[in-house]
Amino acid sequence: VRTPVAVVGATGYAGAEAVRLLAGHPRAEPAYLASHSQPGARLGDVYPHLGALGERVLEPADPDRIARAAPVAILALPARASFELAVALRARGVRVIDLGPDYRLRDPEVYARYYGGPHGAPQLLGEAVYGLAEVHRDRIAAAGLVAVPGCYPTAALLALWPAVAEGLVEPDDLIVDAKSGVSGAGRGLALAYHFGEANENLSPYALAGAHRHTPEIEQALAGAAGRPVSVTFNPHLVPMTRGLLATCYARLAPGVEARDVAAAYRAWYAGSPFVRVAEGDALPATKHVLGSNSCAVGFRVDGRVGRLVAVAAIDNLTKGAAGHGIQDLNLMMGWDEAEGLPRLGLYP
Amino acid sequence: VRTPVAVVGATGYAGAEAVRLLAGHPRAEPAYLASHSQPGARLGDVYPHLGALGERVLEPADPDRIARAAPVAILALPARASFELAVALRARGVRVIDLGPDYRLRDPEVYARYYGGPHGAPQLLGEAVYGLAEVHRDRIAAAGLVAVPGCYPTAALLALWPAVAEGLVEPDDLIVDAKSGVSGAGRGLALAYHFGEANENLSPYALAGAHRHTPEIEQALAGAAGRPVSVTFNPHLVPMTRGLLATCYARLAPGVEARDVAAAYRAWYAGSPFVRVAEGDALPATKHVLGSNSCAVGFRVDGRVGRLVAVAAIDNLTKGAAGHGIQDLNLMMGWDEAEGLPRLGLYP
Amino acid sequence: VRTPVAVVGATGYAGAEAVRLLAGHPRAEPAYLASHSQPGARLGDVYPHLGALGERVLEPADPDRIARAAPVAILALPARASFELAVALRARGVRVIDLGPDYRLRDPEVYARYYGGPHGAPQLLGEAVYGLAEVHRDRIAAAGLVAVPGCYPTAALLALWPAVAEGLVEPDDLIVDAKSGVSGAGRGLALAYHFGEANENLSPYALAGAHRHTPEIEQALAGAAGRPVSVTFNPHLVPMTRGLLATCYARLAPGVEARDVAAAYRAWYAGSPFVRVAEGDALPATKHVLGSNSCAVGFRVDGRVGRLVAVAAIDNLTKGAAGHGIQDLNLMMGWDEAEGLPRLGLYP
Amino acid sequence: VRTPVAVVGATGYAGAEAVRLLAGHPRAEPAYLASHSQPGARLGDVYPHLGALGERVLEPADPDRIARAAPVAILALPARASFELAVALRARGVRVIDLGPDYRLRDPEVYARYYGGPHGAPQLLGEAVYGLAEVHRDRIAAAGLVAVPGCYPTAALLALWPAVAEGLVEPDDLIVDAKSGVSGAGRGLALAYHFGEANENLSPYALAGAHRHTPEIEQALAGAAGRPVSVTFNPHLVPMTRGLLATCYARLAPGVEARDVAAAYRAWYAGSPFVRVAEGDALPATKHVLGSNSCAVGFRVDGRVGRLVAVAAIDNLTKGAAGHGIQDLNLMMGWDEAEGLPRLGLYP
Repeated sequence: VRTPVAVVGATGYAGAEAVRLLAGHPRAEPAYLASHSQPGARLGDVYPHLGALGERVLEPADPDRIARAAPVAILALPARASFELAVALRARGVRVIDLGPDYRLRDPEVYARYYGGPHGAPQLLGEAVYGLAEVHRDRIAAAGLVAVPGCYPTAALLALWPAVAEGLVEPDDLIVDAKSGVSGAGRGLALAYHFGEANENLSPYALAGAHRHTPEIEQALAGAAGRPVSVTFNPHLVPMTRGLLATCYARLAPGVEARDVAAAYRAWYAGSPFVRVAEGDALPATKHVLGSNSCAVGFRVDGRVGRLVAVAAIDNLTKGAAGHGIQDLNLMMGWDEAEGLPRLGLYP
Repeated sequence: VRTPVAVVGATGYAGAEAVRLLAGHPRAEPAYLASHSQPGARLGDVYPHLGALGERVLEPADPDRIARAAPVAILALPARASFELAVALRARGVRVIDLGPDYRLRDPEVYARYYGGPHGAPQLLGEAVYGLAEVHRDRIAAAGLVAVPGCYPTAALLALWPAVAEGLVEPDDLIVDAKSGVSGAGRGLALAYHFGEANENLSPYALAGAHRHTPEIEQALAGAAGRPVSVTFNPHLVPMTRGLLATCYARLAPGVEARDVAAAYRAWYAGSPFVRVAEGDALPATKHVLGSNSCAVGFRVDGRVGRLVAVAAIDNLTKGAAGHGIQDLNLMMGWDEAEGLPRLGLYP
Repeated sequence: VRTPVAVVGATGYAGAEAVRLLAGHPRAEPAYLASHSQPGARLGDVYPHLGALGERVLEPADPDRIARAAPVAILALPARASFELAVALRARGVRVIDLGPDYRLRDPEVYARYYGGPHGAPQLLGEAVYGLAEVHRDRIAAAGLVAVPGCYPTAALLALWPAVAEGLVEPDDLIVDAKSGVSGAGRGLALAYHFGEANENLSPYALAGAHRHTPEIEQALAGAAGRPVSVTFNPHLVPMTRGLLATCYARLAPGVEARDVAAAYRAWYAGSPFVRVAEGDALPATKHVLGSNSCAVGFRVDGRVGRLVAVAAIDNLTKGAAGHGIQDLNLMMGWDEAEGLPRLGLYP
Repeated sequence: VRTPVAVVGATGYAGAEAVRLLAGHPRAEPAYLASHSQPGARLGDVYPHLGALGERVLEPADPDRIARAAPVAILALPARASFELAVALRARGVRVIDLGPDYRLRDPEVYARYYGGPHGAPQLLGEAVYGLAEVHRDRIAAAGLVAVPGCYPTAALLALWPAVAEGLVEPDDLIVDAKSGVSGAGRGLALAYHFGEANENLSPYALAGAHRHTPEIEQALAGAAGRPVSVTFNPHLVPMTRGLLATCYARLAPGVEARDVAAAYRAWYAGSPFVRVAEGDALPATKHVLGSNSCAVGFRVDGRVGRLVAVAAIDNLTKGAAGHGIQDLNLMMGWDEAEGLPRLGLYP
């Protein structure tokens, strides 16, 4: 018997990806598919690629009905859209996996500054667990509310975590130059994502700390470093649908050499089924992980200038959103962490 | 216990796709991976996306070793490269699923004309079964040698079969205008597939019957019509990696109306798990089936000119090659036709 | 002294292309740039690539001001948006080059059927000249109102004209299978043109005569044939920004051979600076004409089935819209037809 | 009368771009087109988009014939391929504009380390002028041999020059994270540029100072700083044909504020027709300069961490190669710097 799982926000790209993955999951199934924007619509009309799921109809995002249908819900909603619903679901005992940003930042004032106003459910922040699966397995397993990391933070953190946690780099001089495929912006229409504008175009945006993922990366890395860190985070839009690469720069601590870095990365990710540390001359590329929940990590030491360059590649909708959420689901349910999640990408 | 399957030609795109699909198959497993061009290489070095398969090493294409390793072999080789191997494998009792073109045409003289010289194993043509799964299920189930249809023919045949078989169109006036993503040309380097040349470019090639898939389509449709047919087949290269669409034109037989066509398509594909007939205003698009073994079929009747326009969309490497081959494998093994094959595409 | 030209609808892709081309024109200049949607905006804010034009501000589409500023106006407006303006401009003696569809169809009832309601300025249809430059040079030179052909019709007509005009094919059995880059749909937002949906996707739409360009192609080809023709027109959206290819199918008249076709195409286009008839094995591809006003034409005769396959490739925004309009402007002004228009494309 | 210019290496992308630009240049013309690889071939067969240049035939790279044909030659050859030819041309009094890397580095030992062996014409290094047009106008005007900057250095230098030259940043802590379209790798076939591999893929390569452009950037910036600088240079391949963006990171000198940076950039580029400094919230994107010789520059100050983020976008084949070379040609000939060069890009 597969455990029923609700997906709220199934008309967005991350929500639809959650449905796709759950449809192939041996221990869970997509049981209740809700949409704020198109309740009543046939799923196959909204997403023809999901037509094989048959005559599924999108339901309203009603907490009572969700609670009757499933013990756990995946929320795939825009920022500020899951305050009430998460409170209502938690009150009904439903465990919540939030793919959105509302429960990632521990400090509601930081949230308010970056997300356009006061936090609407600060009472939930205490129980929220930051769902970086490779780092917080135990806390995720026990959690009632998991905040799945953002797409950029997932890549940046997996690229930098071993180096920062092991003290191999100076934590106050970090740069994350990140590049994402356009699907990271979702299905909502905007000129920047119009094909004619985004195709054959590479564009930086929200540079120099203006992007909302900046405090999220800093908060998480502070946990790795054991002290505050500061990060310059700089995202770019890349003319491809899926794929995200973070190129991270850090000053090496005195005496650290390439072999120390290699040893740390191998040790940290030895038990992580989805992280592959590149060997030899290989470097990660986004296409190596397309459609999979894998993260490819690699690094170079620039000895001339004493700097570490660490890179991580993910699929922004899978490991960067829905797949990471289902990895968290697996941990919460006590299943194998990799259950139902593709490790092999679609290539070419 | 999963049945071991050999894949010969695992360094090509179709072969690698077969490996990917077999790795997730519940009843089969990729047991012996052979390459003419790179025996001895680590699979993960040739295809980083397959790195999770671990330290697999590519083997030589040796029929004795294949026969010891697996009762069935998938060949993913260029034209004219599987004559000897297929003979040797059949002599050792290995069942063969050939993704290449060498056993598709029943007439060796037609083969010789289109494929650059005499057929090298005409003695196998008698037992070869054309592996169009949706049509020849019974014969495939019993076959020792299955010739998986080409990518273009798969789409063209699924688009036209019900109309031709039911006599709804005139079989001597067929046009197939087909469009394929660039991966259909394989991993071999050539200027036409160089990124700078193929990207942002739409180019026709091998027009007006010059393409090798022309006689294959005609041979198969003759089987549907019960008499010879002639087809103008015209392929185009489209700037995308995967995806193939066939737009087919046929003159309607007297008195045939749209509802007759709809009824025929629905009836023909009622028991086919991978064919979805579009309803209402919807039309197939290649992205609806990306990475899946599904085929989306749709049609329009142009009443003003008495013509049927039928379209079919597939992923050229999945339903157009490796996935179709594994669907045939499932039939040969008596398993569920859909076992281990993705019905849902990757979207977006 | 360069002749001032007004561009109305400068915020759309075709309008902006007209501005770009006029900026480099030796005998004309973009003198009055109007926008219904964003009057008052700086051009460089709407289109950063036009920033070098300096502090140009978009004006309202006011006929009096246009008439004071320029003797000729290029309208780049959606269907049904140029009725009043064209009447007002003609009343003020301004010559009008309309890139939109409102004056292309001679029969207002056909217009009403395909364009959502009665024609709003039928009194102008008598003086409107269909601006297919390669065919109607003399009439365009004398015209007060030129209706520039649509993007699909331009390619289809240049592909088929010599064959139809010379009686080499049967005019009642024509098929146009056309493929266009996404910019053909303009800058207006819609889900189908959202990057995630259109990228890596090939999709047919408005098949079997449903598209508005169907009667336009039929009307023009009837002029070539000297009698009514019927066409099945079928467009597809291709994942690239610019480029349009029409693949056209026609039944050869009795006795016609490939050399007759070649002679006709060479003769028809001998004096046309922008049409290149492919020779030998070459076939047109859209990238050969990217960013240029050129049209690459080629053909194949399928002797087995007695059919002509003729193809034409254009840049949908240049020869398919603004460039064709400026070619018409050159003819109207008595300048060299090629003045200010790029013949060489951007490659790769 | 237009000055004849020879182009050697016309079959490569940069060479073909030089031919395209010279064909539209009012004061120069492509007079002698040479190719090592395909002498005797028709230009239109090698590059159909150049077919309008008619029956041009590629000549051998013979210095005597070049010297008779043209007073100036543009070399578009791979590394290490222009030693002999440049010496021979200079001996014949031909002025040389080298788009390749052979004369960019002043120190032949650094050249030998990065370019696979000893420099083959060190005697020319003394007269070679680094052709960064916006900085070295006077020296270029008088030069007999100009080494046009590499594509990555052009963007990195235009992004960083004002800040480094004015002492606004620390010169020993620079990072250049650069992203290029695939055409930057040329027309030579390699798996990494095969469409199936490069499309929908973002891949870093030659990270952490391994790329040959590293010493070139450092040498040039040392000239701006007046003392040695060290740079971590990290390139990435982006799935688009043209376009290059450099995102540069530098630590601000004490007390420097955003307005100081803005003033410096505006002042430095006030007389540069091809550099546009972004204003307000705008940021450069590669599509803003597609097919043009323009460079879009922008910056952000990250006050929290005291860091400057400066970005520059160019078309890698125009301002990043052939266009920059023709800008240098204009300076050498005493013509207007912008003569014959497009300032407006192709959009979308």
